[in-house]
Amino acid sequence: MYLDGQLREYLDDSASGKPAPGGGSVSALAGALGASMASMASNFTVGKKKFADVEDKVKEILAFCEEKRGKLLALMDADVSEYSKVTAAYGMPRDTDEQKAARKAAIQEALKAAMAVPLEAFRACNDVIQSLKTLVEIANPNLISDVGVAAILCTAGLEGAKLNVEINLAYLKDEELVARVREEIDSTTFLAKQVQAEVVEKVRQKISG
Amino acid sequence: MYLDGQLREYLDDSASGKPAPGGGSVSALAGALGASMASMASNFTVGKKKFADVEDKVKEILAFCEEKRGKLLALMDADVSEYSKVTAAYGMPRDTDEQKAARKAAIQEALKAAMAVPLEAFRACNDVIQSLKTLVEIANPNLISDVGVAAILCTAGLEGAKLNVEINLAYLKDEELVARVREEIDSTTFLAKQVQAEVVEKVRQKISG
Repeated sequence: MYLDGQLREYLDDSASGKPAPGGGSVSALAGALGASMASMASNFTVGKKKFADVEDKVKEILAFCEEKRGKLLALMDADVSEYSKVTAAYGMPRDTDEQKAARKAAIQEALKAAMAVPLEAFRACNDVIQSLKTLVEIANPNLISDVGVAAILCTAGLEGAKLNVEINLAYLKDEELVARVREEIDSTTFLAKQVQAEVVEKVRQKISG
Repeated sequence: MYLDGQLREYLDDSASGKPAPGGGSVSALAGALGASMASMASNFTVGKKKFADVEDKVKEILAFCEEKRGKLLALMDADVSEYSKVTAAYGMPRDTDEQKAARKAAIQEALKAAMAVPLEAFRACNDVIQSLKTLVEIANPNLISDVGVAAILCTAGLEGAKLNVEINLAYLKDEELVARVREEIDSTTFLAKQVQAEVVEKVRQKISG
């Protein structure tokens, strides 16, 4: 579990010639960093008299973003372990026709499982982005740039996760599944980017006063 | 130094009600994660017969991205310490006119130093993004989605750093400095986003074969 290890170790391993952590894992971490910023802005709003009228709503957003942060950090580690199963499936023997068929099936199963990880990360990033529509309006304005960073990093996490879904889709034979996932990630990305642009624009307006 | 601490601790502290790590620090970390992906793709290209003709160029890019990664990780920690100096300056006594003037000057100095950190991170993210124009063409195609994630995360790091420069600019009185920095970050962002779009488009082409 990288989550319990040194920050430096995670970075060094991801930069190195090791097969993992790769793009799926670091994208999940970027999303978790974005969720952190939403939680930070919420934590600096909750419990303050000045923001008492939005207290309940912000508490709700805080709990939601903390849940997504936990999920994204788990996916950061899960991506590393699922990836190794794909490599293992590709390494299966293929001397007989029976072995070839078993290997092919195992690869498809491993790819589906490997795709599920960035797809979950993609959805969690989108969930945080959607919650920022409200947070940017009601969060403590001293933390407004952090809400903007939340939008930027969760969108990056979403786009990075999308690329990692797509690279698995390219090898999957189940066309119905491929079409369904492709439709989901394309339409969600379109909407998420709109929200990101709106949130960052509002942040910028508030910064320039 | 968070870099030597637990990954979980950095995330928990940034999500909490502590004043730092905040948006500047996590943006630098996102940029470092992007640089990691460029290094990873380079490491899987260097030393392979198949890519011998681009070996020298990729080695150069690898060294460049590793330097930027080190810089961004240092800035991740520096942002935390500079931020505390701003808070300290705001906390200075302001009973006499002399104290008020000293406090005002200290705040301006601390803000300039605090702005310099995300500005450095902004530049380092841009440097990595520019290097991806070449890397996306010559890197081991098995790692192509990681080059895409590098572009996405470095751009997010750049945009997050930009917001944190802007929030300091809003309080700085040195108009010449403010105008110069604003011009730099606006024009660089425009160009960096163009490169990001081109790199991600090429990655997507290569993924879909």
